[in-house]
Formats: sequence, C-alpha cells, structure tokens
Amino acid sequence: MSKAVFYHAGCPVCVSAEHTVADCLNTPVEKVHQGEARSRVSEAEKLGVKSVPALVIDGQVFHINHGADLSILK
Amino acid sequence: MSKAVFYHAGCPVCVSAEHTVADCLNTPVEKVHQGEARSRVSEAEKLGVKSVPALVIDGQVFHINHGADLSILK
Repeated sequence: MSKAVFYHAGCPVCVSAEHTVADCLNTPVEKVHQGEARSRVSEAEKLGVKSVPALVIDGQVFHINHGADLSILK
Repeated sequence: MSKAVFYHAGCPVCVSAEHTVADCLNTPVEKVHQGEARSRVSEAEKLGVKSVPALVIDGQVFHINHGADLSILK
C-alpha cells in the first residue's frame, strides 16, 4: 500500500483539495497542517514540496492548485 | 458518486499524476488525452482548466503539477 501525506495550510484551496482529492484516494492519507506543525515544513521542503496543498505519494510530489508558497509558512 | 475527468497530454508529468493520483481515486475517472481529442480542449477550457494534467471532479478543477499549458494543445 502506498504511503501518502497531504501537506496543507487550512486555506480554502487546501480544504477543497483535501475533501475532493486527498479524502478520495484509496489509500490512507496522513494530513499535516503546516501552520500547526511548523517543524514539518522543512520535512516537506526536503521532499520537494514548493507550495501547499501538496500530496506526496511514495516520494512523488503532486502540487494541487496553489494555496500558499511554503516559504510563507516558515 | 462523483464524476471525475482527468485531462492530460501523455507527457511524463501527466503519466505520473495519472498513475499515482487519478488511478487511485475511489471513483471512476474518465481520461481524456488532449492531443488525441482536440475537440475536448475547449470543453476543458470552459471548465476552467489552464494546464494539464488536471483533474475535474464535480466541476472543481485541480491542476496537478504542470505538464503543459492548454494553449499549446489547441
């Protein structure tokens, strides 16, 4: 089974992607709110995440629309 | 059940999004290759698709990474 992590910032663009894409994947998805878990911003960055919302599945990064750049969440 | 359409152009970015995101949704996904079904480029445009790969679920557009602008597929 795939490992999926959804990085978001709670913004409307993120919420839409969360409910319509991330929640509809047939694999469990860990959700990380970058505003509340700032220590994980650098983790996301290392994985190649540039902006949120983003879905990382088995190491592949999928930016879904554009809510906020990761840089403003640091 | 949601109606999902995945618009793509067969490029590596599209293929990655197709196999890792679109194919893993728990809803049937119609796949439209914009290079082979050019009549559907304007359909995608009307829905708000700006680039491929893009997933349209119940009228909501999700651009997943960036493979190609729709304009070059016309």
